[in-house]
Amino acid sequence: MTTQYTQALAGTITPEMTAVATRENLPVETIREELAAGRLVIPANRLHLEGLNGGVKLAPCAIGRAVTTKINANIGASPVGSCKQEELLKLQWAVKYGADAVMDLSTGGDLDDIRAHLIANSPVPIGTVPLYSMIVDQPIEDLTEDKILQVIEHQAKQGVDFFTIHAGFRKAHLAHIPKRKMGICSRGGSLIAKWMTVHNRENPFYELFDDISAILREYDVSYSLGDGLRPGCLADASDDAQFAELDTLGELVFRSRDAGVQCMVEGPGHVPYDQIEMNMKRQQEVCDHAPFYVLGPIVTDAFPGYDHITSTIGATAAAVHGASFLCYVTPTEHLSLPEAEDVRQGCVAYKIAAHAADVARGLPGARDWDDAISDARANFDWDKQLELAFDSEKASEIRNRGNDTEGDNQHYCSMCGHDWCAVRISKEVNETLRDQAQA
Amino acid sequence: MTTQYTQALAGTITPEMTAVATRENLPVETIREELAAGRLVIPANRLHLEGLNGGVKLAPCAIGRAVTTKINANIGASPVGSCKQEELLKLQWAVKYGADAVMDLSTGGDLDDIRAHLIANSPVPIGTVPLYSMIVDQPIEDLTEDKILQVIEHQAKQGVDFFTIHAGFRKAHLAHIPKRKMGICSRGGSLIAKWMTVHNRENPFYELFDDISAILREYDVSYSLGDGLRPGCLADASDDAQFAELDTLGELVFRSRDAGVQCMVEGPGHVPYDQIEMNMKRQQEVCDHAPFYVLGPIVTDAFPGYDHITSTIGATAAAVHGASFLCYVTPTEHLSLPEAEDVRQGCVAYKIAAHAADVARGLPGARDWDDAISDARANFDWDKQLELAFDSEKASEIRNRGNDTEGDNQHYCSMCGHDWCAVRISKEVNETLRDQAQA
Repeated sequence: MTTQYTQALAGTITPEMTAVATRENLPVETIREELAAGRLVIPANRLHLEGLNGGVKLAPCAIGRAVTTKINANIGASPVGSCKQEELLKLQWAVKYGADAVMDLSTGGDLDDIRAHLIANSPVPIGTVPLYSMIVDQPIEDLTEDKILQVIEHQAKQGVDFFTIHAGFRKAHLAHIPKRKMGICSRGGSLIAKWMTVHNRENPFYELFDDISAILREYDVSYSLGDGLRPGCLADASDDAQFAELDTLGELVFRSRDAGVQCMVEGPGHVPYDQIEMNMKRQQEVCDHAPFYVLGPIVTDAFPGYDHITSTIGATAAAVHGASFLCYVTPTEHLSLPEAEDVRQGCVAYKIAAHAADVARGLPGARDWDDAISDARANFDWDKQLELAFDSEKASEIRNRGNDTEGDNQHYCSMCGHDWCAVRISKEVNETLRDQAQA
Repeated sequence: MTTQYTQALAGTITPEMTAVATRENLPVETIREELAAGRLVIPANRLHLEGLNGGVKLAPCAIGRAVTTKINANIGASPVGSCKQEELLKLQWAVKYGADAVMDLSTGGDLDDIRAHLIANSPVPIGTVPLYSMIVDQPIEDLTEDKILQVIEHQAKQGVDFFTIHAGFRKAHLAHIPKRKMGICSRGGSLIAKWMTVHNRENPFYELFDDISAILREYDVSYSLGDGLRPGCLADASDDAQFAELDTLGELVFRSRDAGVQCMVEGPGHVPYDQIEMNMKRQQEVCDHAPFYVLGPIVTDAFPGYDHITSTIGATAAAVHGASFLCYVTPTEHLSLPEAEDVRQGCVAYKIAAHAADVARGLPGARDWDDAISDARANFDWDKQLELAFDSEKASEIRNRGNDTEGDNQHYCSMCGHDWCAVRISKEVNETLRDQAQA
């Protein structure tokens, strides 16, 4: 079967390439070229594109440096809480607040049912970590190669658009773990470490990589090569474990391309602000510019409860310097399972990072939105300003809180009041200057 | 009279230098040297240091690149809302959530009474914009030179520690305003523009600079040279108006030093992420490394309701590249007057920026806090982790929300649950690796 990647290589323009070109306001040939170079992916399972079982059809979305920065929202039930309805609500909130993709990381409840339900209701690409489903009914030690391939094929048939596969974490890398403060903070990474340690064998996802690639190619599921050894605290950032795995991820990027499979690479995590640029550049080099999908990174460990903020600082820097896809972090990170309102907070914070980075990268037209809202602000067109605001509901709520907003648009807000409004006074000054110039 | 600056120049170590050296864990000679070079200020009105009228005594605080990054919280009543009690509450919340200084920007209510009340209750430096008090009972057009000096002296006698004085905005700069999208977004700047335009005369604060300096020196009030022409949207960032004023601010830094007065310089505002480093370096050069006090900057205009986040991204970058003092922005910016909870949100966001920047700058010991909380996290010492969290209350609230936290410390949280906890599994792996190594 063909994939977006193999078709791009063959010079074929697919409807999905056309759709993303329109959405990104770019020539479709640019999209094709970037895809063919492996610098861009369109995670789009052919079955999700068709809208399987009468479900919602996927709207194709491109991820790469040539296009706008994209964000992902992680949702999913845990053994401790949530259910199918709650996860559907989170999906809806994620899409409402700008998620370009959603990962279902469920580890509790009826995983199969939740996944099918989310895919059937999602217009955005859905990603999963198939490993989770492989061990809901058995300990990780009992995981077999057959089961790995069987679950991956099953989820591909369900319409999942991209899979996190932790194939880059090799047995030799285990030697670096004891040097760490936080050990392994990736669920997938810790499970694979346990399997390798108990069996004293190589990572089965690495060993099976070509077989897995064959399944992904069949349905055009994209790889998201997992970083099982991402740092879990500032002290572990940019260490031997992280970069040893990155080198293997670079190797797998080429093997993925050889197999005709679309591929992106996952990255940290927790990284001090001054190390972010170096991390992005190193990944781009090692992975031959495969789209980089980062989780944050968080730039300080000391603010649990506010990790949507600590991480959005890192995410902005990451997107400026090389990342294409930002996995959100919510305020509940490190503490609890996110609820719908946390999903909203995480999504908004990450839309800020993505958009601020697009403006900083000088993407054509990126600043038009800022300019439009600034014009509305300068003109006291509150209706327009609130309409253009990313989260209009929140902005209106705050504006209404302290202001008499009835009647026509007021030429001030409660922050300064009428007499002290700089923007109002500034307009008067401009008028006087104009009059003086004409006099 | 002497100031911290003149004493540093004379080689004298003041009790305030000793206090900040202890607080910053630095040799007092370093503090003196930085002060003498004009690269560091200790805003400390001699009357506030004494605790005038039986009020709280100021705990000296140093601002400059040699010490940790500091944050300021703006509070103050507006004509539309708030009162003395509410502002006192905001002061208390600001100090609780880490504000190193507080500016009383009241433009409504009994300004004199609110100011005295805040100073009497504040252990942190209090700043004001004296211009506001000059025009509560008269239009800006009627402002006289006598009134300017009289109000400045009055507030100095009240114990204010630093004054924002918009002396760098010269009449010649008015020509740049009509080119702007947002005009003048600074209250002080817009008022002075009006005065200059109506009278067709030079900025009186510029003309009176030496007289004002004499008053500041008398009480050791520090200058915070205001940026009346800071950009109010991304489109206006780094424009002729902004940099013309900056050049004058650079000139005033030297005049302030000649007068023996401590001095810092205010900066933007709204700046695209990619222009922040350049802005910080240019200011440091033009102002001969006088401490730079920035407001954000906000890196996108499109997220009203979330400007504590849009700006904390810019503030982190600013503090990494040259700023020493970060003026917070709250979620209500552009929309409404902040309430106590908004003050909390703004302060926490800015503590994140300040601390993340200190870690990134490699300040000795800056990362110890992150390492301690990471150790607690790795050890499932929830009590310790929550205790070390900057906002323990918030972190505990989220942890309790989704978890059975009764009894002893659980080795997981509701994000993954027991079976899926990477940190727990990682510890098992480490133990197995240790056993295998010993076998």
